[in-house]
Amino acid sequence: MNYEIFETKEQVLADNDLAARQNRASLQERGCFLINLMGSPGAGKTTLLLQLIAALGKRYRIGVMEADVDSDVDAKTVSEAGAKVIQLHTGGLCHMDADMTRRGMERLGLDGLDVVILENIGNLVCPAEFDVGADLRLMLLSVPEGDDKPLKYPLMFTVSDVLAVTKMDAAPVFDFDLDALTARVRALNPKMQIFPTTAKDPESFAPLFAWLTEKIEEVRAQ
Amino acid sequence: MNYEIFETKEQVLADNDLAARQNRASLQERGCFLINLMGSPGAGKTTLLLQLIAALGKRYRIGVMEADVDSDVDAKTVSEAGAKVIQLHTGGLCHMDADMTRRGMERLGLDGLDVVILENIGNLVCPAEFDVGADLRLMLLSVPEGDDKPLKYPLMFTVSDVLAVTKMDAAPVFDFDLDALTARVRALNPKMQIFPTTAKDPESFAPLFAWLTEKIEEVRAQ
Repeated sequence: MNYEIFETKEQVLADNDLAARQNRASLQERGCFLINLMGSPGAGKTTLLLQLIAALGKRYRIGVMEADVDSDVDAKTVSEAGAKVIQLHTGGLCHMDADMTRRGMERLGLDGLDVVILENIGNLVCPAEFDVGADLRLMLLSVPEGDDKPLKYPLMFTVSDVLAVTKMDAAPVFDFDLDALTARVRALNPKMQIFPTTAKDPESFAPLFAWLTEKIEEVRAQ
Repeated sequence: MNYEIFETKEQVLADNDLAARQNRASLQERGCFLINLMGSPGAGKTTLLLQLIAALGKRYRIGVMEADVDSDVDAKTVSEAGAKVIQLHTGGLCHMDADMTRRGMERLGLDGLDVVILENIGNLVCPAEFDVGADLRLMLLSVPEGDDKPLKYPLMFTVSDVLAVTKMDAAPVFDFDLDALTARVRALNPKMQIFPTTAKDPESFAPLFAWLTEKIEEVRAQ
């Protein structure tokens, strides 16, 4: 073979990892906890975000970076719920990387914020590749997407810390098998926390939010 | 509205444009001419490249950066045709940007090369957004893709300098109207050079290659 193969992606990801580490250091310095919220379009990211702001907004000052290009209304909705919000228009780019996240945080302004949530682009592929420097990766899978998704998008399930299964009320309609999903997820990521939820019962989010609060307090105590 | 909208893409593209200008300066310094070759998967990029190496390889020392992730065989084929080749594995990333192009050129090594061709990822969307610092953008449209494509992918037709219409022998089968295509392209980009070609008749590439040689000489004379 008289030609070289150069893995450009590795270099891109190495640069991104460096920027992500810088984000993490700068967040830690300010005592600010960053959550990278990921999931397909329509998985319920904004709904979960509104529940989260309602539940944790009394205890923490919450900032939100809305990078979901599909929804112009999300920033408005989230702002009305009482969070400090910035809308990030990625203009068709399929994920947020660490550098774009840093710029977003600078424009949002971290001063006075305890928790910042990045609502990533609705996509189970590219966002999984790019560490943005978050303290926690929260992914959503909605029941209509199917319990086989860990087989199709293994990286997202591997890199995430916690999985909220949304729209659980629709499980019978879609023959959704939570045990089968759990087994598939655990095969990829034995440490993944899994929380079934449904917007029809806001109380169903309580165990997830209790677990999140614990994680936030752990990092803030450091 | 109590939230800001931040166009992250503009900043990404501004950074890219700066890197592209640096590439252009560094190529000019070395007397090296860079062609950004773009088109859909299967449009005939590698076939055109082989014809180009055969036609221009006597006059110029040619280097090729193969960024088409779909084809592992392209680098081998092109290398056997006598060009200096590097295979760039973007690992699913949908375009080459200026920074990745710079790294590719560094790994390829520009010393002793007169012309470098970047075979971009097979995609009519994202590669159009990212200036890689090329002296010339050569795009391919194959007849089976249809003469309506300027309506669907206007940016690619707007930013390119020259269009090779490939597989012209199949025009009757696909009801392909070259005049209609030309009118649609000119509406977007009045300066676009358009060359109908077919691999069934290698001579059909001669007018394109004569025009390319003229452009290369213009830049080298500067």
